[in-house]
Amino acid sequence: MPSMIIVLMGPAGSGKTTLASALGEWIEENQEYSVGYVNLDPGARILPYKPDFDVREWFTIDKIMEKEGLGPNGAMIRASELLAERRRDLRKIIRGMKKEVVIIDTPGQSEIFIFRKAGPKITDALKFIATTIGVYLVDPTITSLISELATSLFMGLIIQLRLDIPVVPAITKVDLVKLDLGETFYIGLEKVRELAEQELKGTLQEVIPRIIDVMIDYMPPIRIVEVSAKTGQGLEELYQLIYETYCSCGDLT
Amino acid sequence: MPSMIIVLMGPAGSGKTTLASALGEWIEENQEYSVGYVNLDPGARILPYKPDFDVREWFTIDKIMEKEGLGPNGAMIRASELLAERRRDLRKIIRGMKKEVVIIDTPGQSEIFIFRKAGPKITDALKFIATTIGVYLVDPTITSLISELATSLFMGLIIQLRLDIPVVPAITKVDLVKLDLGETFYIGLEKVRELAEQELKGTLQEVIPRIIDVMIDYMPPIRIVEVSAKTGQGLEELYQLIYETYCSCGDLT
Repeated sequence: MPSMIIVLMGPAGSGKTTLASALGEWIEENQEYSVGYVNLDPGARILPYKPDFDVREWFTIDKIMEKEGLGPNGAMIRASELLAERRRDLRKIIRGMKKEVVIIDTPGQSEIFIFRKAGPKITDALKFIATTIGVYLVDPTITSLISELATSLFMGLIIQLRLDIPVVPAITKVDLVKLDLGETFYIGLEKVRELAEQELKGTLQEVIPRIIDVMIDYMPPIRIVEVSAKTGQGLEELYQLIYETYCSCGDLT
Repeated sequence: MPSMIIVLMGPAGSGKTTLASALGEWIEENQEYSVGYVNLDPGARILPYKPDFDVREWFTIDKIMEKEGLGPNGAMIRASELLAERRRDLRKIIRGMKKEVVIIDTPGQSEIFIFRKAGPKITDALKFIATTIGVYLVDPTITSLISELATSLFMGLIIQLRLDIPVVPAITKVDLVKLDLGETFYIGLEKVRELAEQELKGTLQEVIPRIIDVMIDYMPPIRIVEVSAKTGQGLEELYQLIYETYCSCGDLT
């Protein structure tokens, strides 16, 4: 039975699957824990890891489209309902895994997983098995980093409250962009606030710092790690943040 | 050439397509404006309206999956890139429409449209044609209404800032849930704040009101309309809000 479950979440294309693989390998090699992999994305094509459980054994987006005559949108929503329905089976499967750490790769579209019923029901089921930590991925390549970072961090807070698990934010794909967030692989909320005031314009310049103030008051003193699944940068720091969160959860239970 | 463009946005399954049809019919019947319909969802199956332009003439999720060997996730991201690339063609097509109002139905997954490049690029192109107003749909059937409402409103604010168009929030599918938000079809932010303090628990009870305070300071004095595409409830009020926003934008230009 696993003692830690890591759930990777983030918008479409933020690199959940690639990071699942890289983080799992890093943990196996450097922490000498056995790692189990669970794929919950029924629309996944190629996985860079060998899943110990794959939701595609139950259903795939393609098959739902074909069988129920749905389009891709409808099929994704249907898949999220099916996933919520089978959460007890999933709990049994993960509980039976002879692995110390289990990494869960979630569906491609985060709005479907997080804001429909599947997300909260699945995390509720997982919490019965082991301490469950979320990692929320922020993709710095798709938009202005600072506003994206701030809104993503706010999303991280919403997810934390909605799924009732601690969430560690991580900026992915840092091999593709030059970030200038500080000297280390970490960035604190105060630094994000400072950058927002310097770099944003108009209303965003006023709104974002105020939202960050709310986060500073209600999130545990988090650091945001910068990580690259490709070069391995930041994997150690990400694991450390997850592990610290794991330990502080342990204290609470 | 249209003089008003309405862009319907919202998470997967929030009822964008159904509302596009119902709102368009209501405008045609009650305002006697001619209405054009644009479908930008390449994953749509059946449309309840007859589109004047349909992005599926250019590409569909199915064809992208087949042609580029991608899964549904990858195909949706690819579609969003293709849409951004062809924004000038889209602008030409919409500019040429002999309709007074054009309603735009956006892709099923809002995170792909809004947080990747397509959304901002498309709205930039639309603003050259006519005053463009966004409507952000909140689905009250999928989760606890108050926290969903507050986070959705915050999403509305983020979208407004990100896409640089005014956004009117609307609670959809009100025929399916009993809302107790007040005596009218409208609800103000102050009322949402009050309900959040009464109904939420734990950290949410503290975080959500503070987020709403930020919105009260930075959003124009908005009301949130409750609407049902099925029964027609609230369509008039929604149109009125859109029209008021349209007029106030007009004043600015």
